[in-house]
Order: sequence, then C-alpha cells, then structure tokens
Amino acid sequence: MSQTDELLSNNEAYAASFSKGDLPGTPRLKVTVLTCMDARLDPARLLGLEEGDAHVIRNAGGVVSDDALRSLAISQNLLGTEEIVLIQHTECGLLTFTSQEFAAQLEDQTGQRPEWSAHAFADLEGEVRAGIARIKDDPFVPRTDRVRGFVYEVETGRLREVS
Amino acid sequence: MSQTDELLSNNEAYAASFSKGDLPGTPRLKVTVLTCMDARLDPARLLGLEEGDAHVIRNAGGVVSDDALRSLAISQNLLGTEEIVLIQHTECGLLTFTSQEFAAQLEDQTGQRPEWSAHAFADLEGEVRAGIARIKDDPFVPRTDRVRGFVYEVETGRLREVS
Repeated sequence: MSQTDELLSNNEAYAASFSKGDLPGTPRLKVTVLTCMDARLDPARLLGLEEGDAHVIRNAGGVVSDDALRSLAISQNLLGTEEIVLIQHTECGLLTFTSQEFAAQLEDQTGQRPEWSAHAFADLEGEVRAGIARIKDDPFVPRTDRVRGFVYEVETGRLREVS
Repeated sequence: MSQTDELLSNNEAYAASFSKGDLPGTPRLKVTVLTCMDARLDPARLLGLEEGDAHVIRNAGGVVSDDALRSLAISQNLLGTEEIVLIQHTECGLLTFTSQEFAAQLEDQTGQRPEWSAHAFADLEGEVRAGIARIKDDPFVPRTDRVRGFVYEVETGRLREVS
C-alpha cells in the first residue's frame, strides 16, 4: 500500500462525518494566506482557520512568485478578499542553497537547465519585506493596504511580524 | 481589529500549546500534495495530515503551473518526496470564467494586461488528466510513477480518483 493509499483511507473517514457541503465559494474571512509548502507548517492549525475561512496559497519558500500573484489577483478580483498574510519561516530549505547551485544540480542530472529560478534566498526577513513590496507593486492586486508579513518559527509555533 | 489580527490571536493560542518544535525539514511521508487555494479545502484535515507529514502546494485552481513544477522539483530533488497527489475540485472558481475574460477585466480596470494566463479551465476531469501528464513530462520531477489525480467534492468531502 502506498502512502497515498493511507491518505485516501483517511479521506474516507473525513467524508463519513462531513457536514460542510454548503459552504460558499467566497471565503468567510476576506483573507488570503501565502506561505511555504513546508510540511511543518499547517496554516489552518497555526492560524485557527476552519474550512471556508480563507484562501491559502503555498509554494516552495512561500515566495511572491508570478503564480502567487496570479492567485492573489484571482482571490481579490473575483472572490472578494482584502487582506494578505505572507508567512515565510525559519529553517526554510530555500535558505540552504542558491538558485544557481540548484540549476547546476538539475543540469547535471538531466542535461537540461530549468527556465525558472528556484527563488532561493539568504536573508529571511529581507525576503519577507521584498515579498510585501512585490505584492504592493503589482497592478493586478488592487487591495494592498492590509498586507502584512511574518516569520513563522518552526521551533516555537509562533508568528513574528516583519516590519 | 482586522481579520488578520484575529488570526494572530489564534496563533498565540496555537504557540502556547505547541510541542512540535523538533520536526525535521524532510516530510515524514514522502508525499507532495498539489491543490487549489479554495477556502473550502483543508488539505490536512481532508487527508489526515499532521504537522511534519507532507509538502502542500496550493494555487488558484490547483493547476500544474510552472511555479508548481518548481516546487515539485525542489520537493523531490532536495527533500526526498516520491509520491504526488494532485487534487482539483468541484465548484472551482476557475470553471466559471475564461482566461481571456479575466485578462480583459484586468485590462479594463488597470489599463494593463497581465503577462500570465489565469489558467481557467472548462473540463474538470480533463484538467486533472492534463495536469498529471504535465508532471510526468517535466524533466525536473524525477519520480513520476506514483502521481495520482483526484477531484475533491466540496459537497461531500470525498476524493474521487481521475483515471
């Protein structure tokens, strides 16, 4: 049995007691969370979110990528969100290598070099500040007066605001 | 008080009883989940994931975007994951408009047209199949023998496999 099969078995239990089939498509809170894919972060648990509450965008690093900006544009323009919570975190894998090193590794393995950058970074708080600036500069994300950035401490479970 | 402030208050309660400060950076399960940002989906709850278990990538639609492929490449090459669970869902916002319509709307509002496509789609199961194919074709995602795709039914809480 694969690990995916175990997760599907868990889903059967979830569905058996499911009672949230009539939630609307627009989030109850007008909040979008953007954070890292890291397994140690559970955005719903660490922010106290229930099903239906908020959009959650995640990628490697929690970086403000073009695709994250596409998702934020859809979240705000079509689904009415107004606040953005950007969360990057301590011990992030993207702090441990450079984008050039990773591109070189992939080129060694495959003979091809990716067209994308890995979006690695060296300064965690600086990356949060740069991400906030990138969101505020984006022409397609209209509501940017309530964009706040945080470092999540995987050691303590605590969010620390970056100002 | 903003809604973000409410979430920060929730985080204080989470941190006060936090006991998972020594989890490793590599996921306990060798699984990466890719799904939509939709507020009705809580990947951890619907799959039975605990903190530390699996990478979770999310964007508008749960589409296999270039940025999702970047994240999958980092997940597999640097953090050892081997299985991929792609989950799109019923009642997805991206089923309700076309990418051209959204680009035109943004151009009307801002005077600029986005360089990205919104990645809207009309055929849910077809989009899951196309996403699986895109993952399997990517040269930088090395382990693609266990890539499975699902539709999550927001009405029932149930995952339905797309074959």
